[in-house]
Amino acid sequence: MTRPFSSLAEFRALLSAAPSLDSEAKAGAEERNGQLTKPPGALGRLEDLAIWYASWRANPRPSIENPQVIIFAGNHGVCARGVSAFPPEVTVQMVANFEHGGAAINQLSKAFGADMSVVSLSLDTPTADFTTAPAMTEDEVVDALVAGWTAVKDTSDLLVVGEMGIGNTTAAAAVAAALFGGDAADWTGRGTGVDDEGLNRKTSAVADGLALHADVIADPLEALRCLGGRELAAMAGAIARARNLRIPVILDGFICTASAAALECAVAGSLDHTVAGHVSAEGAHAKLLAHLKKAPLLNLGLRLGEGSGAALAIGVLKGAIACHSGMFTFAEAGVSDA
Amino acid sequence: MTRPFSSLAEFRALLSAAPSLDSEAKAGAEERNGQLTKPPGALGRLEDLAIWYASWRANPRPSIENPQVIIFAGNHGVCARGVSAFPPEVTVQMVANFEHGGAAINQLSKAFGADMSVVSLSLDTPTADFTTAPAMTEDEVVDALVAGWTAVKDTSDLLVVGEMGIGNTTAAAAVAAALFGGDAADWTGRGTGVDDEGLNRKTSAVADGLALHADVIADPLEALRCLGGRELAAMAGAIARARNLRIPVILDGFICTASAAALECAVAGSLDHTVAGHVSAEGAHAKLLAHLKKAPLLNLGLRLGEGSGAALAIGVLKGAIACHSGMFTFAEAGVSDA
Repeated sequence: MTRPFSSLAEFRALLSAAPSLDSEAKAGAEERNGQLTKPPGALGRLEDLAIWYASWRANPRPSIENPQVIIFAGNHGVCARGVSAFPPEVTVQMVANFEHGGAAINQLSKAFGADMSVVSLSLDTPTADFTTAPAMTEDEVVDALVAGWTAVKDTSDLLVVGEMGIGNTTAAAAVAAALFGGDAADWTGRGTGVDDEGLNRKTSAVADGLALHADVIADPLEALRCLGGRELAAMAGAIARARNLRIPVILDGFICTASAAALECAVAGSLDHTVAGHVSAEGAHAKLLAHLKKAPLLNLGLRLGEGSGAALAIGVLKGAIACHSGMFTFAEAGVSDA
Repeated sequence: MTRPFSSLAEFRALLSAAPSLDSEAKAGAEERNGQLTKPPGALGRLEDLAIWYASWRANPRPSIENPQVIIFAGNHGVCARGVSAFPPEVTVQMVANFEHGGAAINQLSKAFGADMSVVSLSLDTPTADFTTAPAMTEDEVVDALVAGWTAVKDTSDLLVVGEMGIGNTTAAAAVAAALFGGDAADWTGRGTGVDDEGLNRKTSAVADGLALHADVIADPLEALRCLGGRELAAMAGAIARARNLRIPVILDGFICTASAAALECAVAGSLDHTVAGHVSAEGAHAKLLAHLKKAPLLNLGLRLGEGSGAALAIGVLKGAIACHSGMFTFAEAGVSDA
């Protein structure tokens, strides 16, 4: 298959050429919203969500029929630094769990009517330990971006991307620190639940990675290459492809958001088609969302990854669209306006 | 039909005799939660929700098959004081809208698979203006409590109660102030969107009602009778019946929560089978939830009533139960534990 892009420069050019929302649909959705049988603004953020979704779908009265959830899995050389509470073999074991229907994201995808798939990214060849070398070569990161890009179905009308990869909160912390500055400790948390010593090892690894690659990581896509991982790059590729297809995206937790942030930092506005599904219990996620000016839809203390928080937010978005597109207007219902 | 209770004293006795959660199911659900393929605690509040729901359903691995949404509608004599941005005839117009499927709650009930019904409570006979007389006689409030009690299906496994009643944020503010103290202004907000003068009229009406009935409203059920409304009493009756049947309840916004609070203030623990679905944009709702020590599941700026916020939260609860009951254990999945 011909790759849709074969370098980071070509990928960046695609980001820059990405389509915008449909202004006519936006105006139509706003007009409709003002006529529905409710006091103005009484559905709060559901109204904003519906208008946002309608704008990207270029349809003032849209529906959500085909949500897609894609889980990308990768392994991380930085695990050699003892950064996780779980052994690296859990990545492949959890992929099997996804394939057999046993993980949280399987249940949530089913509950909210989403098509779910899993994409394993060279699990037997972890990325390089970013404290000693770039995590990926340019070819490797482009392959991962392409894997994400091509995994998005053009028939989908909503996208959630999630991840599995033992060690990937460490990679995400390093990417976030590269994108937004600050100390390693500002971005490093307990992930799946490391103890104090584990947290120290994580923080040191992040600091070492930032120092080693300081020359190149002012470029957001280089930060993704040198410090990220295949599943992080794949999520970024999928989010970019969704933009290309005007498919709205619900962002998940810390790792997903760090990946997405690389797009926004590379080309401002790249995340306008996305909404933050939730804010995770991983402390630095709230900070990332603040940098991106994204207010989360849910705040329920989740810190699982797998796209779980975003999948839960599919329900909120479906509720918003159901109200927007299904309610009667004051005129249709014969209800007196204020 | 014989009424299940024929006085407030008999209703209070039923509250006092209400069943508790099932300790064995709770222990079973906690044990199962600890074995599921996720880091401990990684599903945050979803884990607490699932265990709470399992405990009340007396089933360590429950499912949600039959959620029920009931909307109670009533009219309010206090509307004569100019307390609403909408005319009182909107109550009956909105009931027709519910019956024809055009309101927000219709769309949300459908989206989350809930059976929805509407109960109109003597709409052509508004309650008395509580600034000049008790809103209801004992017979009237008992009738409304019974209407709520009998509207709950014993086959339901989750309950949402909502309301429609022009003027009912004024009634709810008065009830809340009677239950928890403070000035009328602390509990009075803009409801469907009154202007400054309307807000002043609302606050004065609440203050007048509190003063007029000061002798009796230290009794929470008397507060509901003298200051509430039929739909408020009916919601309280339905929530009490759900407890009787061990059906978990998701509380909606300010008016629903004020009604529920009368139960908790009458008999402590009466709301243990309930969870707060959301916190509304009606300012005093957050204060009510704090008094009840209930943390809301959603905070999306809704202020519509109709059970809309609670119905949206059905999705969150369904997600929680789907994970709890559908996920594989570490042993079943062959995944290495931490």
